[in-house]
Amino acid sequence: MSIPYYYKSIDFNKLVQEYEPPMEFMEGSWRWNRDQIENTQFVRLKETLEKGSKIPFFQKLWSKFDFSPDHVQSLDDISKIPMYTIDDIRESIERQPPFGDYQSYTFEDGNHTPLRFYTSGGTTGTPRPTIYSQWDREVGAILSARTFYMHGIRPGDAVLNSWAYSTHNAAWIMDHGLWHWLGCIPITTGTGNVTPTEKQVELARTFGARSILATSDYLLHIADTAQKMGYDLKEDFQFKTLSAFGNTEPVKKVYNCPVYDSYAFHEVQYVAAECPAHKGLHIFEDAFIVEVVDFETGKPLPPGHRGNLVVTALYKTGTQQIRYNIQDISALYEYEQCECGSWHRRMDYFQGRSDTMVKLRGVNVWPEGCGKVILEDERVNGEYYCYVERLKTDGNRERDEMTMLVEAKTDGIDKYEMQRDLTDLLKRKIGVHIQVQVVDPESLRPYTGHGVRAKLKRFEDRRG
Amino acid sequence: MSIPYYYKSIDFNKLVQEYEPPMEFMEGSWRWNRDQIENTQFVRLKETLEKGSKIPFFQKLWSKFDFSPDHVQSLDDISKIPMYTIDDIRESIERQPPFGDYQSYTFEDGNHTPLRFYTSGGTTGTPRPTIYSQWDREVGAILSARTFYMHGIRPGDAVLNSWAYSTHNAAWIMDHGLWHWLGCIPITTGTGNVTPTEKQVELARTFGARSILATSDYLLHIADTAQKMGYDLKEDFQFKTLSAFGNTEPVKKVYNCPVYDSYAFHEVQYVAAECPAHKGLHIFEDAFIVEVVDFETGKPLPPGHRGNLVVTALYKTGTQQIRYNIQDISALYEYEQCECGSWHRRMDYFQGRSDTMVKLRGVNVWPEGCGKVILEDERVNGEYYCYVERLKTDGNRERDEMTMLVEAKTDGIDKYEMQRDLTDLLKRKIGVHIQVQVVDPESLRPYTGHGVRAKLKRFEDRRG
Repeated sequence: MSIPYYYKSIDFNKLVQEYEPPMEFMEGSWRWNRDQIENTQFVRLKETLEKGSKIPFFQKLWSKFDFSPDHVQSLDDISKIPMYTIDDIRESIERQPPFGDYQSYTFEDGNHTPLRFYTSGGTTGTPRPTIYSQWDREVGAILSARTFYMHGIRPGDAVLNSWAYSTHNAAWIMDHGLWHWLGCIPITTGTGNVTPTEKQVELARTFGARSILATSDYLLHIADTAQKMGYDLKEDFQFKTLSAFGNTEPVKKVYNCPVYDSYAFHEVQYVAAECPAHKGLHIFEDAFIVEVVDFETGKPLPPGHRGNLVVTALYKTGTQQIRYNIQDISALYEYEQCECGSWHRRMDYFQGRSDTMVKLRGVNVWPEGCGKVILEDERVNGEYYCYVERLKTDGNRERDEMTMLVEAKTDGIDKYEMQRDLTDLLKRKIGVHIQVQVVDPESLRPYTGHGVRAKLKRFEDRRG
Repeated sequence: MSIPYYYKSIDFNKLVQEYEPPMEFMEGSWRWNRDQIENTQFVRLKETLEKGSKIPFFQKLWSKFDFSPDHVQSLDDISKIPMYTIDDIRESIERQPPFGDYQSYTFEDGNHTPLRFYTSGGTTGTPRPTIYSQWDREVGAILSARTFYMHGIRPGDAVLNSWAYSTHNAAWIMDHGLWHWLGCIPITTGTGNVTPTEKQVELARTFGARSILATSDYLLHIADTAQKMGYDLKEDFQFKTLSAFGNTEPVKKVYNCPVYDSYAFHEVQYVAAECPAHKGLHIFEDAFIVEVVDFETGKPLPPGHRGNLVVTALYKTGTQQIRYNIQDISALYEYEQCECGSWHRRMDYFQGRSDTMVKLRGVNVWPEGCGKVILEDERVNGEYYCYVERLKTDGNRERDEMTMLVEAKTDGIDKYEMQRDLTDLLKRKIGVHIQVQVVDPESLRPYTGHGVRAKLKRFEDRRG
């Protein structure tokens, strides 16, 4: 038995050469032309397929579709690789509980390399575990640090991390990035049930936090709390930039400082980040290939078309993600140079989850999309919660109906009038009837988990 | 501007030579004789005084008592160094908010070395911040790893960390130790308000956790929860050892596996740990000098005498702790070789806080002491909460009285009889009247924070 000491378990020089930390990245691979990007992607894709071919999960999936890594002779051949979704991962866990047959490491490997363990999901159903190798953590942390650096966070900055330090990866890889790769000092508050939002406000003020990491929802809640405590967000704090997830516009308005968006998920960590041009999210293309496919046919879609994101991680040594249809909705930009100078391809902002997408009379509707539409009305405070139910029509046919509960900004608003206006607005913008019900400010918290959950719950399927 | 990458910001070879990680430690400084220990301590104490002399906090404190580092010519001279308590730290913060004048680093130093930031206290009053240098984190993590290794935790073990991942240091330095220096995989649950205890039980079971880090109180709550869920702690889990804080006896009984105690606090991290002989806690004497002093006079006490712990950290490069009277109650053992073979001095188990100590008719009483006494009665479940109030006697003189709320193990017990017995028991063991009030099981949770706080609140001063 021996103990794998962290500082000497991987080749750090190789690491920083292959996946450049923020400052080297901005001078290095960030400026690559398309050929450089795509040549690197192809080499790494082939290596990734090689690693995947040793994992039972991919062996089964690929043989089912008669796929062999040899079929990939150029980047364009990526669409020949079978996709999978969360359902396949769930099946894998059922096949071989509790870790599934998609892991490359077991806990025993802790004997020779430092490991981390996180689970996704967690709100419902069995947790889906991922064991991360040290290499995979470091690359994930470097990608986090690149993101924060692009967002204007700098060495010596104290950064409030308001994501949940729980069995979910998010807060952890951010912490790791700030600490190991950016010279920042995380203020480790976690969410509101670990450190009450009032106390987070006090910590940010007292210790001069320069930024906050949180969802846009929670950033708005922090702002609201600070204002209720009598503070002026511009005068009483030292925020210079915010790194959010989700709609940044309302956040920008209340904090009056730059707010940046990004895209990440549990298994692969940061995938893409907004640059100062604020025109979409640059994919870290040395570490990922991102495609967008049709919701139903799974066929690759051309730039500008909305569909499901399909992500291939190129950097991983442990669990592989090769054409994972994550069912997050977005679209790709054309291949073109951004105003910021980079050729790293951009994707659109996160547009919701297609697994909470509901088909109403042939129209795809999703809660986050509706959430954006209602912001046009100044009487709303932005909080909402959708549910769908299956109703019988007069002719005894079944019909799905969505109801959207929307918080009014203040008490004493004419709710009936507001409901009518919002229902009309949604019908006009989305093309289908969605019943709006206006409720009192703060009354949706128990449903959404506002102020407690880092990522809010927006949807409930009541179709049974 | 540059970014201090973690992997190359300190000299790791120097680090592991000066503060041996677990396996090297057990073969190395763990076997030192007293001369080797004390020679190292003296050299490091002189270096520590040198570092302290550059910090305004110590400059002020020392000049007030006309102390100069030259006055220390041997280890025995340590008692010449002025002590300080939490009150002096609070004053330092008032003098120079919000960091006080006791820090050696500011956030800006993140430019050249990775830093961490945690605060102690937090239940009441202003948080007392500490900025940790990378060196100080690594040594702290090595001491944590030594502790867990002595407790039987090994590389490849999954370990449930049920301490609060918050702005307090505890959970973090444990996580760091497990991850960087022991090859273990932390299951990052945090306390019950981040991951409900039922879910912690499921995670421990599903993923085969080999140990849990938590207070004894919370370990008992986890056991209780598991049993209510219908599990058998021996059959349904893979625990091989538990690393607790506090009274281990009841924990041992319900888990039926070895349970070890240790001693640590926010500013200095792990100070001492129990060895397999289970006879006191070995102080990590290459990193600390621990003294015990009289509660009132502050004079050093001989072995076996109970007093306040006074801790000098020898390893720190940032904030120094030089004769910090932490006001935790314990006693030192004689200088002697332990059954385990080590000459590292042992201290008694934590006996409570002297700042929650109440003088009743000339007798020193503290809640944790009372908590241990009542365990003799089989009708209690171990949960208690004490408060003290100032009452006027008939003659109009003031008199302090303590009331102890004690949970009965089950409903339907004759509370009157139990109250009488417990009041008698406390009077007999402690020598003074303490009014016991027996309450229903689980009714004290809102007071103590059971299942939510990692360290429970046991005492309230209502004297106004």
